Amino acid sequence: MRCAIITIGDEILIGQVTDTNAVWISQQLNALGVQVGEMVTVSDEAGQITSTLDRYMGRYDLLIMTGGLGPTRDDITKQTLAAYFHSNMVTHPEVLEKITTFFKERGRSMIESNLKQADVPEVCRVLMNNHGTAPGMWFEKEGTILISLPGVPYEMKGLMEDHVIPEINSRNKVPHVVHRTIMTQGVPESYLAVMLRDWESALPECVKLAYLPRPGIVRLRLTVVDKCASDAEQILDVIIGKLLDIIPEHIFGYDDITLEESLGDLLRERGVTLASAESCTGGNIARMITSVPGSSAYYTGSVIAYENRIKSGVLGVDPSLIEEKGAVCREVVEQMACGVRDALGTDTAIATSGIAGPDGGTDEKPVGTIWICVQYREKSFAKKYRFGGSRERIIDQASHAALQLLRRLLLSNL
Amino acid sequence: MRCAIITIGDEILIGQVTDTNAVWISQQLNALGVQVGEMVTVSDEAGQITSTLDRYMGRYDLLIMTGGLGPTRDDITKQTLAAYFHSNMVTHPEVLEKITTFFKERGRSMIESNLKQADVPEVCRVLMNNHGTAPGMWFEKEGTILISLPGVPYEMKGLMEDHVIPEINSRNKVPHVVHRTIMTQGVPESYLAVMLRDWESALPECVKLAYLPRPGIVRLRLTVVDKCASDAEQILDVIIGKLLDIIPEHIFGYDDITLEESLGDLLRERGVTLASAESCTGGNIARMITSVPGSSAYYTGSVIAYENRIKSGVLGVDPSLIEEKGAVCREVVEQMACGVRDALGTDTAIATSGIAGPDGGTDEKPVGTIWICVQYREKSFAKKYRFGGSRERIIDQASHAALQLLRRLLLSNL
Repeated sequence: MRCAIITIGDEILIGQVTDTNAVWISQQLNALGVQVGEMVTVSDEAGQITSTLDRYMGRYDLLIMTGGLGPTRDDITKQTLAAYFHSNMVTHPEVLEKITTFFKERGRSMIESNLKQADVPEVCRVLMNNHGTAPGMWFEKEGTILISLPGVPYEMKGLMEDHVIPEINSRNKVPHVVHRTIMTQGVPESYLAVMLRDWESALPECVKLAYLPRPGIVRLRLTVVDKCASDAEQILDVIIGKLLDIIPEHIFGYDDITLEESLGDLLRERGVTLASAESCTGGNIARMITSVPGSSAYYTGSVIAYENRIKSGVLGVDPSLIEEKGAVCREVVEQMACGVRDALGTDTAIATSGIAGPDGGTDEKPVGTIWICVQYREKSFAKKYRFGGSRERIIDQASHAALQLLRRLLLSNL
Repeated sequence: MRCAIITIGDEILIGQVTDTNAVWISQQLNALGVQVGEMVTVSDEAGQITSTLDRYMGRYDLLIMTGGLGPTRDDITKQTLAAYFHSNMVTHPEVLEKITTFFKERGRSMIESNLKQADVPEVCRVLMNNHGTAPGMWFEKEGTILISLPGVPYEMKGLMEDHVIPEINSRNKVPHVVHRTIMTQGVPESYLAVMLRDWESALPECVKLAYLPRPGIVRLRLTVVDKCASDAEQILDVIIGKLLDIIPEHIFGYDDITLEESLGDLLRERGVTLASAESCTGGNIARMITSVPGSSAYYTGSVIAYENRIKSGVLGVDPSLIEEKGAVCREVVEQMACGVRDALGTDTAIATSGIAGPDGGTDEKPVGTIWICVQYREKSFAKKYRFGGSRERIIDQASHAALQLLRRLLLSNL
């Protein structure tokens, strides 16, 4: 089964909104063995939607379309689809009841535009939306299934999970595509490619490799297309086993696990607690760690010491040390880590201090210079990094490097 | 001038990577009055790239293509373009020198795959890359300009800013498109549409309105297409003036300014300092505030009190209060705000405590219940919110609500 994903919305074409829906949908479809051949974004104008449908109907087995189903006047997808399929609009009683209940439960009064969301083209099958007021719609014509979903991400996801995924899964009978992703941290893409040259050359022909860099991280994606899924899994197990012999210290997990999840698993297994003291990373490490559900089991908290006064006052860093050497040095991050462990009473700590830019750099300590210290019981390890790029990128790279450093300290791999 | 943006990469089609490049490129082009008619993502296979070029060459004035120019073997765009334009590959001496210097400056040794990046199709004009090793390429055929750029975002952006934007700007002579975006916080999309019904009905025909919701925020985008740009600006000034009379307390800025930038501007103007005490938001407020360059002028730091012990130990919240009423209540956020102001010595404070989920909810305090307190000198204001959606969405909405609450307190608008 081959699919195209169609996103409707001027807000995407003028770059105001990033299309995260298409990404998520393609993840789900790939997991079902449905191949996404194309993603396209078009304007929310009836003419453009119609000509896009003309181009794709009959060429793909499945079209998933998102956007333009909201309650406001700029939302025109439903009317356009009714016209495209030469269909009347009818009020759907079950949807109407759902919408009424939705508003009652939230203690809000109904408004006219919400009521109109219960009107649908007569030819479609309605997909009930348990997460919002716009129903999904399922059309079939010329051997192509067309599914229209709202653009609000959590409503779209709810409809995919409740209706689309189960039904597509039961209809789809194609060769299995198996992806495996190996998550690495600490080596830039081109260096990694050199380290892995022999391993890459020895890959069987049915295996495709892609290097996918992100700030501070490179993902290695292996793909096997095979009629026998169990074979593919075995082939990948052997290949990944060899990779583990080459770069054991740089691999932190598989299949898009995040570094914060990987570190969280390790802290939970070991039954140790963590606190952080952040300067230049400004709370990003705390945010990453607490983005993981259940992180309160091992994370006690953080002191964001943005001003030097706080580094001394709350974390107990020697003020004369900051005066003499500045806030970006080994001794300061070491004292920050000790200070936050004392204040919060934890087994481990992460501390960061650096220059995220765009201003504040000097010849001696240019923008991107970051000191990181990690501690675990009696062990302490501090390291100076030099990252490149924008403020956001530097913060991101430093945060990843800090989590990986603690992970390696816990695994005695430093 | 009309443009299509072509993104190359299996990693996007399988949903492993979000295409942020297309978003950024379309923003830049729109600002120049270039209309982006379509965005499409295709696989990194020579056949798919070639058939996509066949479809778009001659139909658009400008094609911007990103991806597939890296140093690893899965990068095939350059060879495919050489074949498409029937061109030999030649080594470009200036690029070769640039790459050599790039590696020398970073103290890294050159590797063979990096050297190959200096090879380009003979027919293209090379765009020098000052931010990485893959050069950009400029082709022209059948009245269409085709520009190939690397997929690494900061390299792509550098090439756009150094070469593409200036040159397209000097060539482009089309009617001006003017966008204005009004940033609002605190009212859901459908409610906002009711509040603005009369204002929306009175919009002149040449003005298009779109509602663009994000967690906790709705952006209102007004678009005017007009040959005379100064006219369009005047029309929009009048329309926005009327909007300000209707929802003054919900507007925090214009043209995609973030709430953290808007709050930062206000704090800087007033010369007041800020500290935060976060529980359920877990550092996200600190991260948002410190994402703004220069935020150290007004932001001193934060205590992330994830464990209740820290709320008492570091922030001085009465432990018997937490025992009696739990950590999610008015009194606790008030004491957290007072505590962090005392500890960090600031004029203003934000404190949050709530249940971000997915676990930890009760009948009385379901997931999404968040208490927020803001303080400014002698003024203190606390409010209970109930947000919906995933953990990430709840944290995001709570963080936005907190920043807006402080902004309104500073403006005496509560």
